[in-house]
Amino acid sequence: MIDFDGADGVDLRSDTLTRPTPAMYGRMVSAKLGDDGLDHDPTAYELEEAAATILRKESALFVPSCTMANLLAILVQVQRSEQILLEASAHMITTERGAATLTGAFFLGLPGDDGALDLDRLDDALRPAASPLRTALVAVETTHNAAGGLVPSLSHMAAVASMAQKAGIPVHCDGARLFNAAIHLGVAPAVVAEPLDTISICLSKGLSAPVGAVLVGSARVIDSARRLRKMIGGTQRQVGIMAAAGLEALTTMVPRLAEDHARARELADGITALGSPLTAQTPQTNIVQVDVSRTGRDAESWVADLDAAGLRVRPLGTSRLRLVTHRHVEPADIPRALIAFQRCLDGVA
Amino acid sequence: MIDFDGADGVDLRSDTLTRPTPAMYGRMVSAKLGDDGLDHDPTAYELEEAAATILRKESALFVPSCTMANLLAILVQVQRSEQILLEASAHMITTERGAATLTGAFFLGLPGDDGALDLDRLDDALRPAASPLRTALVAVETTHNAAGGLVPSLSHMAAVASMAQKAGIPVHCDGARLFNAAIHLGVAPAVVAEPLDTISICLSKGLSAPVGAVLVGSARVIDSARRLRKMIGGTQRQVGIMAAAGLEALTTMVPRLAEDHARARELADGITALGSPLTAQTPQTNIVQVDVSRTGRDAESWVADLDAAGLRVRPLGTSRLRLVTHRHVEPADIPRALIAFQRCLDGVA
Amino acid sequence: MIDFDGADGVDLRSDTLTRPTPAMYGRMVSAKLGDDGLDHDPTAYELEEAAATILRKESALFVPSCTMANLLAILVQVQRSEQILLEASAHMITTERGAATLTGAFFLGLPGDDGALDLDRLDDALRPAASPLRTALVAVETTHNAAGGLVPSLSHMAAVASMAQKAGIPVHCDGARLFNAAIHLGVAPAVVAEPLDTISICLSKGLSAPVGAVLVGSARVIDSARRLRKMIGGTQRQVGIMAAAGLEALTTMVPRLAEDHARARELADGITALGSPLTAQTPQTNIVQVDVSRTGRDAESWVADLDAAGLRVRPLGTSRLRLVTHRHVEPADIPRALIAFQRCLDGVA
Amino acid sequence: MIDFDGADGVDLRSDTLTRPTPAMYGRMVSAKLGDDGLDHDPTAYELEEAAATILRKESALFVPSCTMANLLAILVQVQRSEQILLEASAHMITTERGAATLTGAFFLGLPGDDGALDLDRLDDALRPAASPLRTALVAVETTHNAAGGLVPSLSHMAAVASMAQKAGIPVHCDGARLFNAAIHLGVAPAVVAEPLDTISICLSKGLSAPVGAVLVGSARVIDSARRLRKMIGGTQRQVGIMAAAGLEALTTMVPRLAEDHARARELADGITALGSPLTAQTPQTNIVQVDVSRTGRDAESWVADLDAAGLRVRPLGTSRLRLVTHRHVEPADIPRALIAFQRCLDGVA
Repeated sequence: MIDFDGADGVDLRSDTLTRPTPAMYGRMVSAKLGDDGLDHDPTAYELEEAAATILRKESALFVPSCTMANLLAILVQVQRSEQILLEASAHMITTERGAATLTGAFFLGLPGDDGALDLDRLDDALRPAASPLRTALVAVETTHNAAGGLVPSLSHMAAVASMAQKAGIPVHCDGARLFNAAIHLGVAPAVVAEPLDTISICLSKGLSAPVGAVLVGSARVIDSARRLRKMIGGTQRQVGIMAAAGLEALTTMVPRLAEDHARARELADGITALGSPLTAQTPQTNIVQVDVSRTGRDAESWVADLDAAGLRVRPLGTSRLRLVTHRHVEPADIPRALIAFQRCLDGVA
Repeated sequence: MIDFDGADGVDLRSDTLTRPTPAMYGRMVSAKLGDDGLDHDPTAYELEEAAATILRKESALFVPSCTMANLLAILVQVQRSEQILLEASAHMITTERGAATLTGAFFLGLPGDDGALDLDRLDDALRPAASPLRTALVAVETTHNAAGGLVPSLSHMAAVASMAQKAGIPVHCDGARLFNAAIHLGVAPAVVAEPLDTISICLSKGLSAPVGAVLVGSARVIDSARRLRKMIGGTQRQVGIMAAAGLEALTTMVPRLAEDHARARELADGITALGSPLTAQTPQTNIVQVDVSRTGRDAESWVADLDAAGLRVRPLGTSRLRLVTHRHVEPADIPRALIAFQRCLDGVA
Repeated sequence: MIDFDGADGVDLRSDTLTRPTPAMYGRMVSAKLGDDGLDHDPTAYELEEAAATILRKESALFVPSCTMANLLAILVQVQRSEQILLEASAHMITTERGAATLTGAFFLGLPGDDGALDLDRLDDALRPAASPLRTALVAVETTHNAAGGLVPSLSHMAAVASMAQKAGIPVHCDGARLFNAAIHLGVAPAVVAEPLDTISICLSKGLSAPVGAVLVGSARVIDSARRLRKMIGGTQRQVGIMAAAGLEALTTMVPRLAEDHARARELADGITALGSPLTAQTPQTNIVQVDVSRTGRDAESWVADLDAAGLRVRPLGTSRLRLVTHRHVEPADIPRALIAFQRCLDGVA
Repeated sequence: MIDFDGADGVDLRSDTLTRPTPAMYGRMVSAKLGDDGLDHDPTAYELEEAAATILRKESALFVPSCTMANLLAILVQVQRSEQILLEASAHMITTERGAATLTGAFFLGLPGDDGALDLDRLDDALRPAASPLRTALVAVETTHNAAGGLVPSLSHMAAVASMAQKAGIPVHCDGARLFNAAIHLGVAPAVVAEPLDTISICLSKGLSAPVGAVLVGSARVIDSARRLRKMIGGTQRQVGIMAAAGLEALTTMVPRLAEDHARARELADGITALGSPLTAQTPQTNIVQVDVSRTGRDAESWVADLDAAGLRVRPLGTSRLRLVTHRHVEPADIPRALIAFQRCLDGVA
């Protein structure tokens, strides 16, 4: 349970709320530092090597945020007036679409289900004749945020990559929560990463680092990304302090994501057990989507009422809520969250 | 019937094939000329005044193509990192999406039917909270190319405009075939234009001018468009020669579009009457879409076979054909086209 | 003498004022036409072949304006966040700089003299370490507009091309008045074009075509330019009408540019002979720059006074005038222009 | 003296090398944290309030780097196809010109001396008729990096601001080392900032914070910048850790910059006293430029030789060196640096 602003409630708005661990603070204060804009900060270097090793790619780059990792993946791999194919509700479209406007890349949203692209539509879109612009990148997302943290199957990812590869096009993965995906699938993260050319991973979500993300890929792509990072202001001097926390996150915090998943499952089951007009999607990872459309109230109204009842969540459009479990959500917080829902339902009656 | 390259067939690929009329040539050689990059070419000025008058807007600008008219509508009204809402199969997306990449505007495709936007989805998308980017423009299209030349109703257009206006957002219309729409609706073109802020009209489709289009709107928008036209290379010197043909097209050629519509209807009825696995959409204007998906052959194959049978058409994706009637399609060409279809069907059996 | 708006004066504002010749009108009405957006307009094709042949390059593309030819040269050869080296007062900077903002190319202006680049500074700028952005293009200009129509020497152009070639970078030439340069140099246009990779030539300046320009270069570059021309709205349907005039201009009007040069020389000599505080640069081609800084009046004031005296010219900054001779300037117009200057000088006294 | 990679030399490459102070570490581990992407990190908020107060502006925004602060100043204040006037050797041009290519803003470099703009040329450039693009921003820089850390006078800055204000155009200051400028001028930083609309300040140069910069300006501009910071990936979650170090830097480290200035003066005097062909510019702040053009060796060669002699510096073009003093340069390091120079000079003889 996180104590925000003196309040005493349960905060399920996002796993980005997670604070650094004591071990992270320890690493931060003892980190070897350099000037990452001039030479190479040694701790950032260590983090980058670790990330590349874990995902079994050639190289990696530490950046201030996962948004910047995705932006760099575009800047490096997509030229002006080329296009990116991605699922229409991908986070790169819903939240990060501004990247298209800065880079001159066109985002072509394709239909999908549960975060997975419709492969027939992808096949159509990959035909050169289908578009006035050359396709330069296919982008996937796992876990898929708008799909409620669902995890496209390994075979789906392999199929996407195979189709893209035949067309000579690289595949980027917005893997902000790729480690959650690996845990759900029961495989090493490198197995998830295997068919992908570039991957963004976020260190400041469930992994609890204060800030930062890593872009992973071939040496050629990462070299270009390093140069372009400077252009958009993402190169920082003694960045090893932050990289130290990220290194701790990356190397020690992955297994405990399973707890978040278990907590999310308890939460969804509990909401379903309320026997109410609320419908909770069965979670695969740490996100629970709750449909409030049959309650006669919209999502904004639910957010306000739950807040008053001591539970903070976020709306997803007008008829759904999004609940995210994380390190500060303790076992006792689940019944507390369910009580908040029950109170709000009672208020309806 | 157009005689292309000595061939003796029927060409239904597009109404852009239409050649100038003798009257257009007459106007071209006698047009008063100026330097449109320096002062204002008098004939271009006359055309612009005529277009503004016909659509009852303040001002107008003659440009080399309808693609450029749409591009200028964006450059003037949408800033970098703002977005445009438009139906997902709009011509501005399917064919002209490169404009997004040059202007830094984001194109957000919304679902629609028969060329009309889904108003609920438009309403959702217009909520400021729905997007990380400010919406700066709503774009509609009439007649709607990908929908087979269908014409969204006047009440639909009014509803779109009303929703946009409430949100303080202008509406642009890709009206490449707006005069076809007006004829189908049985109203003056100005009635179609009434709820719209800016309109692109094409002079070189059914109207038969050799080249050129006009962007129509408020004086403020058109003044900016005039300045920006120069930046993208659309300002031409003694452009009055082309404007003269456009003036003839605009002022004399609109009523005869009804003939193209009649011809399209005959064509669609004839295809239906073939009693075959071909399905022709009932046309409202001069475009006929033919579904070949139940024939066991794809669109490319049909295009090649019809071509061999003396009929030129274009594929629309993999399972449909697009047939467009125009000034050079004479009454006798319709049975000739139907014979070509019949021959190809017989070839199947 | 051109008769503008019923007035009876001498118009030296620009050679863009030139109207089509009777022979051009003859070609326009008899031109074979196609749909240049669908197949290839045969007359446009003929013009493109002629331009490529004359400049001894592989391929060419007819476009609405020289501004668009330069824009396409950038779009094809310079990617986002790459840079172009060009002389700081190049027309592509002074007037067409908007191209940089649309294409995401950086224009780095280098010092120069009389339209020629400072080769030492070019050498410095070509060092990869000299810039955070990769240099993708060197652009030159002949005749050089802001330098008063001066013509960089063939050896200078060869030196620029050699330095660029060593760095693996193509050279583009804004050759809006390249034929004037060839006449001044006494060589065939292909000799001027020889060291250059792409060249824009304008048909509607001294050559008197109503509109249009041509981009010339390798087949690979021109193929890309053809595709991108559509994106920016420069592809037109029955464009052969305009191409016909351009073909007449390109194949018959070049030699007469020598008359414009002679006329410019007479004009400059005459102004010098006035024995006044006016200083006329000795022209090499058809542009005369007159320095008014010692007359106690600024350029705007001179433009207004000369206009009242029956002579139209344009200001160049605040202390110079720009006079351009062209086909409509007849021998008798030179003394008339000089009388206008004398009257204005008398008005000063 | 900084101990890099076990070496035992003097490193004058940049003040960005400075490592955090113990007090900064203390603040980092005790900082109150929030989620700056969701609510507002309280320590970042405190830093932003402090920066706004110190410069007497309405609002401020903490960002990962000064490059990003400058990029945001453009994104907020300059629209696509508008232009920025700035001195031709400004850091925003020499190093950060990529911002122009991402934002669609045109950078027009104007002549200047010692980091100050030529006011006559600025006046010319501000005339609307002078350019095809609207000028949206004037950018100045203090201390001026390429001018060797020189400080444009307060009256110069006021004159620039007055001219811009008359034209209705805001002034941005790349104030990466604005505090060095204030110390040289002997005024409060707010006095330097007074005529400026937006200012970027860097926390990780002489002020010794590990990372980060602040953009300061009106509430309206900063609100927009906050939204756009997210778009380019500059929004970070528990960023208070870094903000804490920045707060320590901003509130306690300014006065000691005077020591760096004194050290730079000693260094320049010492080089001059070597009686050699080396010419050291008299420094006003913490940067010393040394001209090596009369030594018969270029800058790269000097950098290598000095490095071998235990002194690290950076080349500035081909004929100058750039030496920067900072917190890790102790009094005893000056004679050591001079000895390195002497050794290299001796090697010449």
